[in-house]
Amino acid sequence: MGDRFRIKLVIQYKGTNYHGWQTQPNGATIQKILEEKLSRILNTSIKVVGSGRTDAGVHALGQVCHFDLPMDVEWSRNNGKLKRFVLSLNSLLPADIVILAVKSVSNSFHAQKSAKKKSYDYYIFNSPLRNPFLEEYSWQVASPLSIGKMRRGAKILIGEHDFRAFCASGSSVKTTVRKVYGITIHPPPLIRISITGNGFLKQMVRNIVGTLVDVGKGKTTLFQFRKILKSRDRRLAGKTAPAKGLFLRRVEY
Amino acid sequence: MGDRFRIKLVIQYKGTNYHGWQTQPNGATIQKILEEKLSRILNTSIKVVGSGRTDAGVHALGQVCHFDLPMDVEWSRNNGKLKRFVLSLNSLLPADIVILAVKSVSNSFHAQKSAKKKSYDYYIFNSPLRNPFLEEYSWQVASPLSIGKMRRGAKILIGEHDFRAFCASGSSVKTTVRKVYGITIHPPPLIRISITGNGFLKQMVRNIVGTLVDVGKGKTTLFQFRKILKSRDRRLAGKTAPAKGLFLRRVEY
Repeated sequence: MGDRFRIKLVIQYKGTNYHGWQTQPNGATIQKILEEKLSRILNTSIKVVGSGRTDAGVHALGQVCHFDLPMDVEWSRNNGKLKRFVLSLNSLLPADIVILAVKSVSNSFHAQKSAKKKSYDYYIFNSPLRNPFLEEYSWQVASPLSIGKMRRGAKILIGEHDFRAFCASGSSVKTTVRKVYGITIHPPPLIRISITGNGFLKQMVRNIVGTLVDVGKGKTTLFQFRKILKSRDRRLAGKTAPAKGLFLRRVEY
Repeated sequence: MGDRFRIKLVIQYKGTNYHGWQTQPNGATIQKILEEKLSRILNTSIKVVGSGRTDAGVHALGQVCHFDLPMDVEWSRNNGKLKRFVLSLNSLLPADIVILAVKSVSNSFHAQKSAKKKSYDYYIFNSPLRNPFLEEYSWQVASPLSIGKMRRGAKILIGEHDFRAFCASGSSVKTTVRKVYGITIHPPPLIRISITGNGFLKQMVRNIVGTLVDVGKGKTTLFQFRKILKSRDRRLAGKTAPAKGLFLRRVEY
């Protein structure tokens, strides 16, 4: 009695019509909808813990969250029951949210605190003409971008650095030091910037992308880019790239 | 004076939020929006003629239309002016419609009557789990489909046939005979059925796709599929595949 069993979910969503991941007083969020549907199916109030927030309009290919199930051990360790549970959860969720995977995990697992690595993809549609099908999934940049320069800029970010210059103001975190493991940049017209790190500050990926685009345009030199990183001053970095181009691809534990 | 110069446009659009191509009394259509913007820029009432209709929700990668410009010959033969004209037209159009190309053509060119070939792509997302990002661009079919059977079925359609069995009821055309030049089927999970022909009947592609999916499921045998084509009876064919998976890819002249 009173034993709780922890469940891990992998979730995919199109963020266009949501006010981000985290439950808010106003507006639909992914977390809120998920908690509503889980509470309905399980007939008790369920709170979910995500690996981290995603901003309004940001998408997820593989967001992770956990919640505790006030059930018998038999229930949560029974794969057939878990599978049927996901089927009914998916049938209740709207078309833009889908549960990809469900797993019974130990109580020591924590979607946010146990996360070791996160990967994001950012899509830039580099073309003078917009693309109606990519509109919700990319940032259209009309002027030509030098992928070579952007790649050299990205290289500067690899390793452990204080990324304060790329952190949204108003964020309160203990430390702004993060480790970036890798950045790859897929060439135009649909440029994909993939970045993996041990964690990311508020709007860090979008601020990096905005500044790398200035590098690609030749507006910011590699020398200046290095100085921006070192400055730890948000005002020196480029503008924040739009949310709609960002995808949380993967969370590793 | 009174001389008219014909302009050909290649248009791309996401059909999700439109009542199809053709101007209707109620609801936004691509044609209506295009005519409104053209009339505004050119300061005179402009009517456009499309290569054919697309149904509500159907997308276009390369729809073609023409219109007549009551302008001096200098204007329409001036490439710089045409380019600036497209730029201002694109800036007035909503995010889900874009003009890809503009060209001054002879008065004998007719977007519908001069069309020699049309190509369509149809996307089926063949997976038990939905994909939030493909939702507006594909038909999700959960049960496994045999691509081999679908390809053998598609082969039966190649050549000149009376496609009445795949024509929506209520259509009034002189002849239901059409020539299909080729069909290719890209394998799952995102199945793409590409079909090229000299012309297509009302909902012909969607009815073919719906019936081919029955073949892929094993619900309809190849023998039955051949009989459906020969029957010229719409009631024998499968259901109409949803509009959202269909893209008018190309019109050739």
